[in-house]
Amino acid sequence: MSKKNEIIVIGDYTVTQLEKLSEEFQTIFVNKTDDLRSLSAASRKNIKGVAFKGHRPLEFDAASFDLLPELRIISNFGVGYDGIDIQEAIRRGIKITNTPDVLNDDVADVAIGMLIALSRNFLNGVNWIKSGEWGKSGEMALNRTVSGKKAGIVGLGRIGCAIAHRLSGFKMNIHYYSRSEKSSAKDWKFHNDPVSLAEEVDFLFIALVGGQETSQFVSKEV
Amino acid sequence: MSKKNEIIVIGDYTVTQLEKLSEEFQTIFVNKTDDLRSLSAASRKNIKGVAFKGHRPLEFDAASFDLLPELRIISNFGVGYDGIDIQEAIRRGIKITNTPDVLNDDVADVAIGMLIALSRNFLNGVNWIKSGEWGKSGEMALNRTVSGKKAGIVGLGRIGCAIAHRLSGFKMNIHYYSRSEKSSAKDWKFHNDPVSLAEEVDFLFIALVGGQETSQFVSKEV
Repeated sequence: MSKKNEIIVIGDYTVTQLEKLSEEFQTIFVNKTDDLRSLSAASRKNIKGVAFKGHRPLEFDAASFDLLPELRIISNFGVGYDGIDIQEAIRRGIKITNTPDVLNDDVADVAIGMLIALSRNFLNGVNWIKSGEWGKSGEMALNRTVSGKKAGIVGLGRIGCAIAHRLSGFKMNIHYYSRSEKSSAKDWKFHNDPVSLAEEVDFLFIALVGGQETSQFVSKEV
Repeated sequence: MSKKNEIIVIGDYTVTQLEKLSEEFQTIFVNKTDDLRSLSAASRKNIKGVAFKGHRPLEFDAASFDLLPELRIISNFGVGYDGIDIQEAIRRGIKITNTPDVLNDDVADVAIGMLIALSRNFLNGVNWIKSGEWGKSGEMALNRTVSGKKAGIVGLGRIGCAIAHRLSGFKMNIHYYSRSEKSSAKDWKFHNDPVSLAEEVDFLFIALVGGQETSQFVSKEV
């Protein structure tokens, strides 16, 4: 077998992840992008790949690219790649990969779980049981039914769709707002305005991409 | 409009429910079945209908039937009618009605909510947020994914089915135990033994009818 390729690993990877990376590559670890400066020019100059788990916007900037003159690819850990200056990467012909879809199901699961937990007041239920109140005052007050209600989804991307599919199993009427009507969503009702969507539904999910474009998208009127 | 029929209302109905009953009927209220004795023979003797919200097993027994010689029907509030001596009612030709299906959706909703809340450790999450721990120690530990796992349902009655339909939206493989294989459940895998079911799946739901027949059905082996 040929000698392993050398990569730089940036970010707070877990021990398991680091072990996995070390199996495949010869690895140099640094905590954050700034720490690239602490590496010798010799250890930086032949690096072609970076494994990146960064959180701060544009943490991997033009200066970082300058430090790695032979860089060909950054493997971004996660869906969001706002940690990397993409324009700069494109300009230099460096590939960026990310991990879309990996967490859609989990995000949608938790969204549905939160809907039910809130509507049925689980937290109050847990406290009711722990306090022994049920022994004295009897049953806890009734709560809101989830099934059969109208649900609204702002943003019918991958996660919005995953939420909608789960809600269908609860006999819910699905309404959504999106930039355009989706031909794949003909059982669901399109709204061209998030305010009309919010007025129509019992429960509202926000499943928009983050970043400047959607910042403060959910206004007071919604 | 003809004079309203007279009924006896037994149990802890809410004010709204009592008002509703009074709109339709001339009503006599008592708290529990034993209180029938406190009513005069004259007020009991023409009663043909009872609205019943009882909780204790066989609370409405042969002696209660004796107190209402003209009784034709008991409208039981709820799915379970273990408060009424059914054999006695049949012997006397008295009709009993109940309210199946009314709560299937709510029970199934809460079952799914509990699955997600437990698997994703919502309670820990709430405490994590409240304690401010996220500011010091960062993200909470990851938890178990729900979607795509194997779910088992013991008892594929109305509620078991409602649970299974919801789980389908979470891309789960559904297994079930039931007295016989159901032709309506061909996408789901039948087990003729609850122990083999429990061994196969990641999550197990119990959706059996209550009572003597199923008491201690879920053994240590399961």
